[in-house]
Amino acid sequence: MSDVKKVVLAYSGGLDTSVILKWLRETYNCEVVTFTADLGQGEELEPARQKALLMGVKPENIFIDDLREEFVADYVFPMMRANALYEGLYLLGTSIARPLIAKRQIEIAAKVGADAVSHGATGKGNDQVRFELGYYALNPDIKVIAPWREWDLTSRTRLIEYAEAHQIPVPKDKRGEAPFSTDANLLHTSSEGKVLEDPWEEVPDYVFSRTVNPEDAPDTPEIITIDFERGDAIAVNGEALSPASLLARLNDLGRTHGIGRLDLVENRFVGMKSRGMYETPGGTILHLAHRAIEQITLDRGAAHLKDELAPRYAELIYNGFWFSPEREMLQAAIDHSQAKVAGTVRLKLYKGGVHVIGRKSPHSLYSEKVVTFEDDAGAYDQRDAAGFIKLNALRLRLLGRRDR
Amino acid sequence: MSDVKKVVLAYSGGLDTSVILKWLRETYNCEVVTFTADLGQGEELEPARQKALLMGVKPENIFIDDLREEFVADYVFPMMRANALYEGLYLLGTSIARPLIAKRQIEIAAKVGADAVSHGATGKGNDQVRFELGYYALNPDIKVIAPWREWDLTSRTRLIEYAEAHQIPVPKDKRGEAPFSTDANLLHTSSEGKVLEDPWEEVPDYVFSRTVNPEDAPDTPEIITIDFERGDAIAVNGEALSPASLLARLNDLGRTHGIGRLDLVENRFVGMKSRGMYETPGGTILHLAHRAIEQITLDRGAAHLKDELAPRYAELIYNGFWFSPEREMLQAAIDHSQAKVAGTVRLKLYKGGVHVIGRKSPHSLYSEKVVTFEDDAGAYDQRDAAGFIKLNALRLRLLGRRDR
Amino acid sequence: MSDVKKVVLAYSGGLDTSVILKWLRETYNCEVVTFTADLGQGEELEPARQKALLMGVKPENIFIDDLREEFVADYVFPMMRANALYEGLYLLGTSIARPLIAKRQIEIAAKVGADAVSHGATGKGNDQVRFELGYYALNPDIKVIAPWREWDLTSRTRLIEYAEAHQIPVPKDKRGEAPFSTDANLLHTSSEGKVLEDPWEEVPDYVFSRTVNPEDAPDTPEIITIDFERGDAIAVNGEALSPASLLARLNDLGRTHGIGRLDLVENRFVGMKSRGMYETPGGTILHLAHRAIEQITLDRGAAHLKDELAPRYAELIYNGFWFSPEREMLQAAIDHSQAKVAGTVRLKLYKGGVHVIGRKSPHSLYSEKVVTFEDDAGAYDQRDAAGFIKLNALRLRLLGRRDR
Amino acid sequence: MSDVKKVVLAYSGGLDTSVILKWLRETYNCEVVTFTADLGQGEELEPARQKALLMGVKPENIFIDDLREEFVADYVFPMMRANALYEGLYLLGTSIARPLIAKRQIEIAAKVGADAVSHGATGKGNDQVRFELGYYALNPDIKVIAPWREWDLTSRTRLIEYAEAHQIPVPKDKRGEAPFSTDANLLHTSSEGKVLEDPWEEVPDYVFSRTVNPEDAPDTPEIITIDFERGDAIAVNGEALSPASLLARLNDLGRTHGIGRLDLVENRFVGMKSRGMYETPGGTILHLAHRAIEQITLDRGAAHLKDELAPRYAELIYNGFWFSPEREMLQAAIDHSQAKVAGTVRLKLYKGGVHVIGRKSPHSLYSEKVVTFEDDAGAYDQRDAAGFIKLNALRLRLLGRRDR
Repeated sequence: MSDVKKVVLAYSGGLDTSVILKWLRETYNCEVVTFTADLGQGEELEPARQKALLMGVKPENIFIDDLREEFVADYVFPMMRANALYEGLYLLGTSIARPLIAKRQIEIAAKVGADAVSHGATGKGNDQVRFELGYYALNPDIKVIAPWREWDLTSRTRLIEYAEAHQIPVPKDKRGEAPFSTDANLLHTSSEGKVLEDPWEEVPDYVFSRTVNPEDAPDTPEIITIDFERGDAIAVNGEALSPASLLARLNDLGRTHGIGRLDLVENRFVGMKSRGMYETPGGTILHLAHRAIEQITLDRGAAHLKDELAPRYAELIYNGFWFSPEREMLQAAIDHSQAKVAGTVRLKLYKGGVHVIGRKSPHSLYSEKVVTFEDDAGAYDQRDAAGFIKLNALRLRLLGRRDR
Repeated sequence: MSDVKKVVLAYSGGLDTSVILKWLRETYNCEVVTFTADLGQGEELEPARQKALLMGVKPENIFIDDLREEFVADYVFPMMRANALYEGLYLLGTSIARPLIAKRQIEIAAKVGADAVSHGATGKGNDQVRFELGYYALNPDIKVIAPWREWDLTSRTRLIEYAEAHQIPVPKDKRGEAPFSTDANLLHTSSEGKVLEDPWEEVPDYVFSRTVNPEDAPDTPEIITIDFERGDAIAVNGEALSPASLLARLNDLGRTHGIGRLDLVENRFVGMKSRGMYETPGGTILHLAHRAIEQITLDRGAAHLKDELAPRYAELIYNGFWFSPEREMLQAAIDHSQAKVAGTVRLKLYKGGVHVIGRKSPHSLYSEKVVTFEDDAGAYDQRDAAGFIKLNALRLRLLGRRDR
Repeated sequence: MSDVKKVVLAYSGGLDTSVILKWLRETYNCEVVTFTADLGQGEELEPARQKALLMGVKPENIFIDDLREEFVADYVFPMMRANALYEGLYLLGTSIARPLIAKRQIEIAAKVGADAVSHGATGKGNDQVRFELGYYALNPDIKVIAPWREWDLTSRTRLIEYAEAHQIPVPKDKRGEAPFSTDANLLHTSSEGKVLEDPWEEVPDYVFSRTVNPEDAPDTPEIITIDFERGDAIAVNGEALSPASLLARLNDLGRTHGIGRLDLVENRFVGMKSRGMYETPGGTILHLAHRAIEQITLDRGAAHLKDELAPRYAELIYNGFWFSPEREMLQAAIDHSQAKVAGTVRLKLYKGGVHVIGRKSPHSLYSEKVVTFEDDAGAYDQRDAAGFIKLNALRLRLLGRRDR
Repeated sequence: MSDVKKVVLAYSGGLDTSVILKWLRETYNCEVVTFTADLGQGEELEPARQKALLMGVKPENIFIDDLREEFVADYVFPMMRANALYEGLYLLGTSIARPLIAKRQIEIAAKVGADAVSHGATGKGNDQVRFELGYYALNPDIKVIAPWREWDLTSRTRLIEYAEAHQIPVPKDKRGEAPFSTDANLLHTSSEGKVLEDPWEEVPDYVFSRTVNPEDAPDTPEIITIDFERGDAIAVNGEALSPASLLARLNDLGRTHGIGRLDLVENRFVGMKSRGMYETPGGTILHLAHRAIEQITLDRGAAHLKDELAPRYAELIYNGFWFSPEREMLQAAIDHSQAKVAGTVRLKLYKGGVHVIGRKSPHSLYSEKVVTFEDDAGAYDQRDAAGFIKLNALRLRLLGRRDR
């Protein structure tokens, strides 16, 4: 066991991280600094401060930050520019939050002179990897403590026994095992484990917390517009909004119309398959709107290159490599393409569906004059197509002659 | 103008290809063989025979083939195995039909000793490319006649004048210009041009022909199952169906629930952007179901490689390179991955949405024993994750040390 | 034939472009502006001016530019950062020069108010595409005249007859057909056609002009060093040199030691295979030296991403898409990786071979402390490898269990 | 420590694996089965049998197999079809041998009823990963013992002490530390560590064992031919040879002419950079010859797709994922392309260099008729290029109009 003097713990104030707080002090005999971030998970942060104080954390060792704007502007939006989908479907809501938490922990560690950081992610999941790759990338010499991989509290019963033995208050609803495990931030809420573990069984309705059931959504569609500038959304229904406010607004719209539920069996970086339920109401709207504005503002070459790079980019984020040279290289390529991705998208929200119904842009590359079925006044010479096809066919003809 | 003796024309029986039939004979003084395919476009084929006879085509020169099963089994299904989406959204319904028509024309040309083939696609679109790359790949020495690129009938008015001057019956509804242009087969119906040419304007409701408006779809969701074997769908709701019958069944379900409408601005191979409306009811269900069955039966390495190859594969089909070595190479890779893609997917259809709610397989790679949040009895050793992370982080740490 | 008032011709002063000059005036009855670039092809430029004057071009319509530094700094070096090789072997010496010539022609056209540009590339090759894609990208409305695709001078005999009929001096050695066709600039000399057209026949020795035969090279190896900064070479043997001077120095070294000959059958963008002989003496050394300095300064993630992107990047340059969004996106990614690609590479030149024998860098990521076979004092914990392997193996084990 | 009854050890007969043999018995109190493979490493195998007997291994537990033909036919050749180069330069000579050894160990384990396998690779290298991923893929339930990660013999001194204490003969030259570490098989010899650990220092001449120094190679070039069939080499200088004999023949030629030396700093899968020296005499010739025969027999679409897939394919082999679905998928794609890769390549070997000087094939796609600078009698219509360029330029022109 390595020697640790001061550790910065990602602390939610809940039972698990409270037990970790205690266990760190007991096990490492070290000072614990707590860090609690507001990423839009929808919980009050002050109770976390009170709990930390009650646990004996010194006031100057309690850090509570509102990271919502940074989260959306510097993490969610760059990822949205890429149209990233993990395994074709997942909008990466958990993955994209971890690097920011890791970065802030390392910054606090530098500030308070801590030599270690710690998190509450288990040894089976992806989050441990995302946290720790972030830690190591930003401070190669930091010590990392992952209690779930180290301690012997291998069941919830033992965790609660430990809590009771150490005067850690155990909320009533934690006595029985929770029926599933969740993570939440401004982009999404995820649920996995337990009642969700059989991928043949439908997800029970009580698992959802961020969206109404599409069947209960309004019977009347709602039409909205989103404005974009340089690839980022800047306004909803004509109202300019900060990144976090904008995503919150779309979340409200998405919640109402039952948008963004995803039942997925995915491949974890650690090598197993898991089944999760994701709710990404605003993000789902944003993703489709971004694709729509790109349709008229992005050149084909740029668009197709982006499509080919996107699976790799998504994989990097999922696997925890946000702070890696290759993610940054891909980001540089993607961002280069977004200079003129600007304009307005019109969407219809209805019963769980997001339907793009119109898009316009001052930078549109769509040319009605060229594409028209009507007389195009010479904008396009149809005879050019003959040569185009002949030369595209040439290698196939040479091949055909050989292989007949 | 090259010397042509006998030409095989892709003939629908409609006004345009009837004018082409006449024009070919007049211009090239050649014998015309008509080929009409049933690809599930939902039109009677016998009228095409009658029209061809009326136009003076010899009975032995009239070919009418039901290609529905071949179309689905050998073109749609292989493409579905790839999860191919052009520009992230489009299921390639038009693109995938052209190679089969081209192949059949070349076969008929060989049979009847024709030295040329002809089609009715315009000089602005992708279809001319798809037809002609197919022709040339399968018979490098065939002559290709693309009337729309050659003749001077550059407006509908002139086309109708030509028809009337040559005793070709002009249907009443063709007198006025059609408000949009369509293509249909068992996989989809596309609509483009004219009233759709402003991508900011919502597609009028009368454009849709294959699906009800989601707002008019039943208020009660419908649960269905699809069974897969070796990557292909084989049964709906437990009933084994041939490929074409299965797709037809899914089309019925999709139509009822308003599934598979897509409003897209896409990049054509010939270099311009165009706006299209696609209806792919059954294909949309199939696409999502196939992804779902892959989720539990495909290894991560195979799945991610497929995701990286899919945009290129889709582009090849869109651009008309079905009969190319590179499409075949990608198909070989994709097909290799599908041996165990088998099992059953449960889906909920509701108001335009397709929601996967369950999947199971005799070949499932999902292991509840390994993934469980409960005690896993040693199936997974959480301490392994420490070394896994440490070595994945090593290069990032060396980098961090250098760059600080 | 479109109406042309003033045309900027890429003019070498040789027979072909002199005939073109005359033909342009005769055919289009337009003013001709000549542009002659020094790209390091090793020819005097003043004779081109004299010839243009003799042909009646007004002095103010004669442009002669030394573009060597711009060529190497802004075209060759960015490409070298990518380690670009077309079809695994070719250093793209011709391809990379065309965009610069095109750009300069468009700039001159803007300056002199010309409405057209023209070049001397034939209708079978890649260069016409590279020139014209450059023209159109930089000025979408420019008129392009490609005489070889338009005129009826389809043989050298007819070209010479035309020249004689128009008082254009025909050099003695042009009377007989040249035994092969060449292109040259500071990066390379290419030779193709005629005596080279049978790919089974060895290239005759008289084809080579830029390198000695390896068999005639010195019997003693020469050791050199190249210094890099931000991915670009900045010094040879410790002497700081401008980009063009540096490449010239490496060309001298390469020439002496018979380095950089390549006999290649390649795939042209227009669809046919052609056989070419390339001499890229300095570029070959530079390419290998750049790879060597990247070996110690580039992170694995960045290096492997670059390797995967390089074939596409090379294809874009070969096909003439230098001024395309997708090439620029890839360049942004590549350039992002080069910030710390700095240091010194030691190479041995011998009888046609370039052998990297050492590399060092202030930004080296190579850690003898970590890699050593000796006791590493805890820099690396071998037990970490157990977990690393176990989790990398997990999916393969689950697969193996299923498939046994 | 897990319970082990019988273990199959990859046994060379050298000091290290002899110590491992002893240590396994002592530590696990288990029966040890030795497996020694002839992969063309150029050592006698019978001494290994004698040593195993002397160490007390039962005769029926000693397995010695000549795997040379299987190695070349089923591992080296498939990899050569891909033109695989790790990090642009390395022919993967060590990586490609490990899966075969692993496969044979698992087969022997099944035969003798062993529950474990073991190897002598250290905890810092790639080979442990390659062995163990192979083991686990082929038998997910096998136990794996990696002594170098488990024991406390952390220096050579302690290893020798252990050997002496256990009556294991220590060769004289092992008393002092070897100046570098090697691996050899029919494809290559690698050397790394110790005197090679400073990547700025030239590799000393005594490190090389498979090739003469190019400076000592014959002053006269040697011309050879290699025949290919379905992508594999089948004859040298017209003489048909089995895969292993053919590679051995090319090794002799390469040795004589000093071909295939590579000084590389590479990125290991475990996260560090290492410097190695590789000698791949025959493989280097084969690699270039294969590219040359592909030049005239492979279509551009197939060739470029191969070039884009090759880095990933090489990475998979390097990282030990030979027995993975994604490597097999890529192999399926690659093999699909090789049906007509047949013909003869002529090469000149001289002073370390391999120069392709000619290639011919009954399946050549090279068409002198089409490519010729002379009159091509209509094989290619240069005017087609105009339309080809116009449509390739269309999107760039629309972009240019927008962005000016």
